[in-house]
Amino acid sequence: MLDVIFEQIFSPPIMFFALGMFAALIRSDLKIPPEMSTAMLLFLLAAIGLGGGVGVAKVGIGGVLGPGLAATFLGVGISLLGYTILTRLKFDAANAGSIAGHYGAVSAATMVAGLAFLDARGVYYEAFVPALYPLMDSPAILTAILLARFAIAKTKVGADVKVDMPALVIGSITGKAILLLVASMVIGYIAGYEGTKPIMPFFDDMFRGILCLFLLDMGIVAAARLKEWKIVGPRLLVFAFVMPPIHGIAGVLLGTLTGLSVGGATMLGVLAGSASYISAPAAMRAAIPEANPSLSLVASVALTFPFNIIIGIPLYYIVAQILIV
Amino acid sequence: MLDVIFEQIFSPPIMFFALGMFAALIRSDLKIPPEMSTAMLLFLLAAIGLGGGVGVAKVGIGGVLGPGLAATFLGVGISLLGYTILTRLKFDAANAGSIAGHYGAVSAATMVAGLAFLDARGVYYEAFVPALYPLMDSPAILTAILLARFAIAKTKVGADVKVDMPALVIGSITGKAILLLVASMVIGYIAGYEGTKPIMPFFDDMFRGILCLFLLDMGIVAAARLKEWKIVGPRLLVFAFVMPPIHGIAGVLLGTLTGLSVGGATMLGVLAGSASYISAPAAMRAAIPEANPSLSLVASVALTFPFNIIIGIPLYYIVAQILIV
Amino acid sequence: MLDVIFEQIFSPPIMFFALGMFAALIRSDLKIPPEMSTAMLLFLLAAIGLGGGVGVAKVGIGGVLGPGLAATFLGVGISLLGYTILTRLKFDAANAGSIAGHYGAVSAATMVAGLAFLDARGVYYEAFVPALYPLMDSPAILTAILLARFAIAKTKVGADVKVDMPALVIGSITGKAILLLVASMVIGYIAGYEGTKPIMPFFDDMFRGILCLFLLDMGIVAAARLKEWKIVGPRLLVFAFVMPPIHGIAGVLLGTLTGLSVGGATMLGVLAGSASYISAPAAMRAAIPEANPSLSLVASVALTFPFNIIIGIPLYYIVAQILIV
Repeated sequence: MLDVIFEQIFSPPIMFFALGMFAALIRSDLKIPPEMSTAMLLFLLAAIGLGGGVGVAKVGIGGVLGPGLAATFLGVGISLLGYTILTRLKFDAANAGSIAGHYGAVSAATMVAGLAFLDARGVYYEAFVPALYPLMDSPAILTAILLARFAIAKTKVGADVKVDMPALVIGSITGKAILLLVASMVIGYIAGYEGTKPIMPFFDDMFRGILCLFLLDMGIVAAARLKEWKIVGPRLLVFAFVMPPIHGIAGVLLGTLTGLSVGGATMLGVLAGSASYISAPAAMRAAIPEANPSLSLVASVALTFPFNIIIGIPLYYIVAQILIV
Repeated sequence: MLDVIFEQIFSPPIMFFALGMFAALIRSDLKIPPEMSTAMLLFLLAAIGLGGGVGVAKVGIGGVLGPGLAATFLGVGISLLGYTILTRLKFDAANAGSIAGHYGAVSAATMVAGLAFLDARGVYYEAFVPALYPLMDSPAILTAILLARFAIAKTKVGADVKVDMPALVIGSITGKAILLLVASMVIGYIAGYEGTKPIMPFFDDMFRGILCLFLLDMGIVAAARLKEWKIVGPRLLVFAFVMPPIHGIAGVLLGTLTGLSVGGATMLGVLAGSASYISAPAAMRAAIPEANPSLSLVASVALTFPFNIIIGIPLYYIVAQILIV
Repeated sequence: MLDVIFEQIFSPPIMFFALGMFAALIRSDLKIPPEMSTAMLLFLLAAIGLGGGVGVAKVGIGGVLGPGLAATFLGVGISLLGYTILTRLKFDAANAGSIAGHYGAVSAATMVAGLAFLDARGVYYEAFVPALYPLMDSPAILTAILLARFAIAKTKVGADVKVDMPALVIGSITGKAILLLVASMVIGYIAGYEGTKPIMPFFDDMFRGILCLFLLDMGIVAAARLKEWKIVGPRLLVFAFVMPPIHGIAGVLLGTLTGLSVGGATMLGVLAGSASYISAPAAMRAAIPEANPSLSLVASVALTFPFNIIIGIPLYYIVAQILIV
């Protein structure tokens, strides 16, 4: 299975991320104009939302209700659990929210690897599995952002001052990241596969290419803050290896309870166990700019992703086989 | 036919326009960087021009001469008529020019709906019909911009001062919107279908996707000026419903006179009756920045477009059948 | 063969370059925002590097070793020779480096014309010929940039001050243009054809379209400096017509010595004889901003390109036939 890991580490988006870090460390003048960075961010958020909305529209809300609720529950739950644990590990609210959101959200590459794992073994899985992605991803990101923004607002107004909850909720929802993500999902859901076809050469085909240049910028940003990573390293290292199997097995369990097949339950485990480095970095950068992207990206890309590919996917499959007989 | 309208209203570009208005109205921090806005504008103008030039090259200038002249005459005439009426309705020169240009120019979506209407009924139409689009669209936009720019220049220099006509014409033609539009059309015409093939994955396939983000920005801009719309609302509402059938029937008449078939004459009516919300907003924003884009866009998208889909297209078809027997 | 030349001169990227010059000369307000210009530059450099890296990966380093070394030797040698000659012709270091790099680097359009020339005559050539492109292109550009940057640094520090060579080399290599170009080539080589497939709709399909808008900007920049061209005109004119056949015949000779077929040797001559107007302008603008892009672009596009198409390609083919019997 080493080839799958290497294939991913040496995938262009991840290598462009490394290039960005390298460029910053050797003090190169390679920089991304802020306006280009914002443009790519807006593009990625709209593209993620549209894809998610189309995914839900494809299977219909009814057909995906049980597993969909399970996916949403997992996304929200993992973000809540992660945030609680990370704040106890002395992470500040911004980083705890950002990292928790990364772990609640889903890694597309891990999902693809999981599906390939099942395909190679001829294991049946429900066709709507990819639609569970946005149902776990967006609620997880939303939960994590709300947790962090509430906590940050509380700090700023002082301990003896009441937090203006409704204003915070409205502020969080009208923030550009969530607004564009949710609105694009609604647009994708309403327009559906046929309606979004003419715009998908832009929003779908360009996605991974633009992601390369976006992660190049993320790498430059991450490297500039790499020293912070050293401070919190050990605690996050433990988190990155201990939490994924807990999330993944919870996913398999909930998949089994909502009537999924062995393959489907395995996949819900894979989605829950994975940590995002596509949708979450884009959303977090916009909604929690105080957080250090190197923490969450290094943890999710360099630690949790290989763990899931080597140990996680086979583990969730074995657990699903034990639970469903 | 209600499904066709809903399909259009709930098409992604129009929904992104609505999202932009919504975001501005709820005071979200969702903003498009000005440089990104300019970049999208330059792209859209070049893409429209290239597509138009290729369209003319495809059929050859000779083959499309009669109907082409009719299309150009209609484009220029509708802009002139619209400008005259709108200034009498007390619109200022900038808005009169912008709105007149929108109505002189053509809506691609309405054209597609018209062709689909004929296809569904098995009605024959000339294959070069799509090439009439740019022959009506560009002259209409040019006429409207010239009218507005002349009038605005006249106001600025005062009543007793002679307007420097040649400078104005040169200024209008060397303005970035018209220069890029016309030059791109020339480039598209010279390079032709084969010559532009390698660049069309960018200029053609990306068009509607980038249009979404452009209209998102237009929505933000439009909403910020929505109160002006309330002032002029009733007059523009009448214009948006009364003029299209007049333009459309004139189109059918001219189509008949230039020897088009029932289907072809219907289509010239559809093109004339439609109001642009793709090429015109891009051109007008660059050439008449003083105009309020919410006026023209709301009128063409929200009023004239549905009118044409429901009543216009069948009406022009019936008129064409009566005229050609 | 006149049709091939016209086809190229009237290709959209070159016409957009002309439009840019025209717009600047008539003092139009058509401008490209600097951030958009930088974004396109970063895109083009990444795309060129990725394509080059994939090209090398496709044939394997071993299979292309002999002709590859010949191509690299030619690229470096032509840049060195060009730089030496141009500085003797009283060009300053910046322009000598930029022009030499353009002539050391390769024109994709000339390569395509050469392959078509051989195809039309049924002449066999090695399948890895396109992979020689980056092996000549990048070293040539690197050599030219290093030569120019060294010389410029020397001038700045004064005649009696020692030049800090290691700092200059590090500075040149960590400069954004070379860093992004070389790193993208490494990424393309590691990821290979399959690994870069998901990002190629962006980096490959968009390339020539974005090149149009990039050359539009180059045209605006070039025209603003056109008066400098008149000063150096005659000398560069001679260079643009005399050097290509020398480079081309040297290429055929080296191709023959490294065991290429008549077709392969012809193609190495075509690559060596050609002057870049795609990769080199992008790299030079970033690495030697002091150089005047109009000099190198007018020479390579307007003089050397047509020369190669009419006289060069058949000449190199005849020489290859004489050498290999």
